[in-house]
Amino acid sequence: MTSNMTSDATGTAATAATGTDPVRSAAMALGDDALILSHRLGEWAGHAPVLEEEVALANIALDLLGQARLLLSMAGDEDELAFLREERSFRNLQLVERPNGDFAHTIARQLYFSFYQHELYSELAAGDGPFAPLAAKAVKETAYHRDHAEQWTLRLGDGTQESRARMRAALDELWKYTGEMFQPVDGLEGVEWPALEERWLATVGAVLERAGLTLPEGPRTGAWAAGAGRQGLHTEPFGRMLAEMQHLHRSHPGASW
Amino acid sequence: MTSNMTSDATGTAATAATGTDPVRSAAMALGDDALILSHRLGEWAGHAPVLEEEVALANIALDLLGQARLLLSMAGDEDELAFLREERSFRNLQLVERPNGDFAHTIARQLYFSFYQHELYSELAAGDGPFAPLAAKAVKETAYHRDHAEQWTLRLGDGTQESRARMRAALDELWKYTGEMFQPVDGLEGVEWPALEERWLATVGAVLERAGLTLPEGPRTGAWAAGAGRQGLHTEPFGRMLAEMQHLHRSHPGASW
Repeated sequence: MTSNMTSDATGTAATAATGTDPVRSAAMALGDDALILSHRLGEWAGHAPVLEEEVALANIALDLLGQARLLLSMAGDEDELAFLREERSFRNLQLVERPNGDFAHTIARQLYFSFYQHELYSELAAGDGPFAPLAAKAVKETAYHRDHAEQWTLRLGDGTQESRARMRAALDELWKYTGEMFQPVDGLEGVEWPALEERWLATVGAVLERAGLTLPEGPRTGAWAAGAGRQGLHTEPFGRMLAEMQHLHRSHPGASW
Repeated sequence: MTSNMTSDATGTAATAATGTDPVRSAAMALGDDALILSHRLGEWAGHAPVLEEEVALANIALDLLGQARLLLSMAGDEDELAFLREERSFRNLQLVERPNGDFAHTIARQLYFSFYQHELYSELAAGDGPFAPLAAKAVKETAYHRDHAEQWTLRLGDGTQESRARMRAALDELWKYTGEMFQPVDGLEGVEWPALEERWLATVGAVLERAGLTLPEGPRTGAWAAGAGRQGLHTEPFGRMLAEMQHLHRSHPGASW
């Protein structure tokens, strides 16, 4: 269980993060997405509005944490990568690091991300690359995450005036972070990113239509959009979250306290 | 998903908590144990020493939360009972509300409680009372929780000098809370409490012996022991935890924000 700083034959966490092995790069990008979103969802523990929802969010967080472990272990020492990397070495999308906000924000983030992750893992599972076995398992989990986000989107969009307004605001606010999801990732060369984006727009758009909502109209790419997480640039709340997440491990390296 | 304050035909959460239906009383006692320990374990989210352990603790917390939902729904409206009850109406053992402390404290609490819960649910599952179906499912979960606590106890007891000293201190400190577990619970009339306690002492003692540790020697009953949680008397950290847990729901009753 203790972190072995020298077990990684190809170098330290820092070199792993900037290394040029494309499979490791991709494992880190996808693993960081899952790790960071898992931690964000874990922040709902003890704070969900009702017990049923607490169970649902905890289940999703746990699925993502399991994916993160598998993916990060493909990139190096999973604990070293999670707990000893600097902020600039994390490769997650900025979308997943955004704070939970109100429940509508969390659901909008889930809607955008789970539909992306489901499309991406479906494509990886159908291929014969190094991520196919993992994706085949994960795609079953992401199908559930997608359904959960969809059900809540319908419920909030079609609910009270307040729930609809909150969902509208959350969708709009997070929209600018969605363009980043479709930037090609090194090591996932087989993925047809433009087609993936088309499917994402179509499926998310269909859910929003059923919910009496529409796709936001703001920019998703270019100067007014956000998203350079894959290059290690993160938003301000991420640093705080990371400090919190790494504090215990860094205070007592190699110890279990 | 919203809490319906008038849906409980037999009255409010307050009367449910003090009601005399023994099955509801027992459901509340066992449900509160599971709910409160689940929340304590949930506090490890994002703070566990390594990812593998974060997954393990999250899994246990989720099992307990599932048990809590089933049990509290036997006692009334699960959300009302979780989020709108006053501290004095909670019927959980004081053991489960004790703060996480260091990792050894969490493991000592898990060792004491999971062996208790496993013995109790095994007995309930073998009977034909109202808790038999739930216990039959839960006993599989508690077997895993027990194994997890056992493995860690062996590891810490048989580890470094520091890990052994920390485990020793944690076992000693929590010992006085263990007597309460074997006070008869209304609504669980078939349970042979003294025999349950004997089995618990034997099984926990055997684990500690294998770990190079021993059962603590301090008092577990009488004036120097602790534990009146089943009567609604709780320790000081419980109030803070409850305030945290109920804050969101109480600030916006009936809302999902």
